[in-house]
Amino acid sequence: MPTGTEHIVTAYSDELTGLAQLIAEMGGQVEVAIENGTKALLKLDRELADLTIIADQRIDDMQRRIDDMAVSMIARRQPMASDLRAIITSIHVASDLERVGDMAKQLARRSLKLEGMNLQPTFYNGVKNMTALVLRQIKEALDAYSNRDSARAIEVCNRDDEVDAMHTSLFRELLTYMMEDPRNITPCTHLLFCAKNLERIGDHATNIAERAYYLQTGKQLTADVQELQRTQIKA
Amino acid sequence: MPTGTEHIVTAYSDELTGLAQLIAEMGGQVEVAIENGTKALLKLDRELADLTIIADQRIDDMQRRIDDMAVSMIARRQPMASDLRAIITSIHVASDLERVGDMAKQLARRSLKLEGMNLQPTFYNGVKNMTALVLRQIKEALDAYSNRDSARAIEVCNRDDEVDAMHTSLFRELLTYMMEDPRNITPCTHLLFCAKNLERIGDHATNIAERAYYLQTGKQLTADVQELQRTQIKA
Repeated sequence: MPTGTEHIVTAYSDELTGLAQLIAEMGGQVEVAIENGTKALLKLDRELADLTIIADQRIDDMQRRIDDMAVSMIARRQPMASDLRAIITSIHVASDLERVGDMAKQLARRSLKLEGMNLQPTFYNGVKNMTALVLRQIKEALDAYSNRDSARAIEVCNRDDEVDAMHTSLFRELLTYMMEDPRNITPCTHLLFCAKNLERIGDHATNIAERAYYLQTGKQLTADVQELQRTQIKA
Repeated sequence: MPTGTEHIVTAYSDELTGLAQLIAEMGGQVEVAIENGTKALLKLDRELADLTIIADQRIDDMQRRIDDMAVSMIARRQPMASDLRAIITSIHVASDLERVGDMAKQLARRSLKLEGMNLQPTFYNGVKNMTALVLRQIKEALDAYSNRDSARAIEVCNRDDEVDAMHTSLFRELLTYMMEDPRNITPCTHLLFCAKNLERIGDHATNIAERAYYLQTGKQLTADVQELQRTQIKA
């Protein structure tokens, strides 16, 4: 009769892989949500907006599943320090992804409010550029996390300055449209909030990248480390 | 020679109490941050704004301490299911509190941007009322959490509708000031974001209350439960 030790070890490693797969799947759903939420916004597509709003429930359910799986694994497997850290990190990453899903839902909801308003195509340029950038940030952060790639994690964190700069510039641009014509005030206010949502998606990407870095290196990715990295690149 | 079992049990219970105390302490710091952040905003008090921004670092450190303590307790104590759930919940609550601290910092930062702008005292009325309400929500949510008070948790969740209604009404009010006079556009846009920050603080209070409810009852505080509760109150 086999002792079952090997079986238990394999099952445990399967569970760890399963947890990682759940995170990857949730990440995929969140990326689609950002794409759909922003497309709904840019095309005022009511159907896509509704789809994004409904999809957010599935993302919330995914978070609960990841949470439950993590807790159950800890309770049954009593993992060692490094595995425990990885499992707890998956709880944090799922929490960030849940909030990104929420941002995508908010973008979709804004699109419903914008229907029938006086929208100029130029209002959208900045939003489009920001969308492309934050979508890339989320993808790269998830890659850094799943591949334990600390170099890529640093790149994501450094690029957050670009997101912030783009947000500031879009903020100013939208204000000028509002000052030019009072009819622009309501639609541009909604777009200001969309820009803010996109900026926050960028912040969550940074959070995920910071967690990926910590998992890989055991060190916090502080401003110091980023600065050191920049100096090394320049040198 | 004592077996040490009693000692270990006491030390474990001390650690659980210690973790709860850390959360309470962090909650206290966050409440002060909301008070200071909004006071800085309403009085354009630069010193208080700086203080709130600096204090946010301590709040972030608290989150890391709670995280580390929780992970270390799980690793060393291998807690049973109910304790494990409580410890994991403390990680989630600390994460919500960290974000509330971040909102307070953002309120303080806005106050620095508003300096020297054309601000009418009437712009502030809605912000003042919302501040009082969300501060109450955070306090009550933390009470519900520390006292495992599910009835109070339900009250907090139900009252979130009031926060949302207040936010919607403030949003509309600020838009009218912007339409009346283009000079109001920039300051009122900043106040729109302050109102949004306050609304999000309310959302985090709801999250904490939902976690408190789950810890006490083992059930998710869904819309159904809230609806049932309302019906029971009316009946």
